[in-house]
Amino acid sequence: MKEKIKYIAYVASSIDGRIAKNGQSGTDWTSKEDWNFFQKSISKFDVVIVGHNTYKVSQIHLQKRNMIVFTTKIKKLITVGTVTFLNVKYSNIFDFIKKMNYAKVAILGGPKIYNFFLQNKMLQELFVTIEPYIFTYGVPMFSGDKFVKYNFVLKSIKKLNKRGTLLLRYKYES
Amino acid sequence: MKEKIKYIAYVASSIDGRIAKNGQSGTDWTSKEDWNFFQKSISKFDVVIVGHNTYKVSQIHLQKRNMIVFTTKIKKLITVGTVTFLNVKYSNIFDFIKKMNYAKVAILGGPKIYNFFLQNKMLQELFVTIEPYIFTYGVPMFSGDKFVKYNFVLKSIKKLNKRGTLLLRYKYES
Repeated sequence: MKEKIKYIAYVASSIDGRIAKNGQSGTDWTSKEDWNFFQKSISKFDVVIVGHNTYKVSQIHLQKRNMIVFTTKIKKLITVGTVTFLNVKYSNIFDFIKKMNYAKVAILGGPKIYNFFLQNKMLQELFVTIEPYIFTYGVPMFSGDKFVKYNFVLKSIKKLNKRGTLLLRYKYES
Repeated sequence: MKEKIKYIAYVASSIDGRIAKNGQSGTDWTSKEDWNFFQKSISKFDVVIVGHNTYKVSQIHLQKRNMIVFTTKIKKLITVGTVTFLNVKYSNIFDFIKKMNYAKVAILGGPKIYNFFLQNKMLQELFVTIEPYIFTYGVPMFSGDKFVKYNFVLKSIKKLNKRGTLLLRYKYES
């Protein structure tokens, strides 16, 4: 019996849907409660996927784990240790994941990476952490090139600390 | 004893912090549960404030209530029936509210109007309705011209329907 591959996205955001100041800044503004949840969560995945910006600015590149980095800078897939650099224009990411026998895939952003999986109907579940800030400016959670209404259903709500960091779990519906 | 004037903002958003497709489209995509909550809430206010776009595209212009409409199209304040058109560059909105003896003010958007009150430290409370959609594109909740970290505290969480429309109440902290 063949299990379906699980694609789950994680995102930490301000109340107004911003995830960072700009493409060169990280997500070090999030609460320690979210950081702990995030670290614990991704330890259970076979592989994590990030964009090239997220790979550079987050601490993810310091960790030795299976990782796929989306990049436009190469044509042919390159693997260095546990990290594979892949250009989705030239390589099929879904075929690669099947070939590698990965069963649980964590999508960690940024906005174009999240959007890629959403567009391909492969973002099955979404964990959103809402930190109690408003930024009014900066990188949005998802960045598509047109308005689309993707439907989700809220599965659970958890308050992570006294200030009100919220962890929401959504399932993609259609 | 003089009571402090209360400024409370209401916003309905997708999971990814979008409030409309574009400046010409309304917020008719929200759930009926949110619409009911919103109508009931604003009936308790002395005045509502909207931007000129929101005034035109929402059903708010059909309602006979005290209203201030921010606009850049005029210099001198104009009042037509219960509606006052005001340019914040030439008129002091806070003086006007005091002069009118308004005690409860509802801020209804769009993004620049929310940002104006936030910048002026006058957005004391914020009701955010998160509808279970992702749009990936469109008008953001707040639109400032630089990254600022405004601190809020989450005061309450309410699930408005089975699909998972969430109503969050935040208080501004500093």
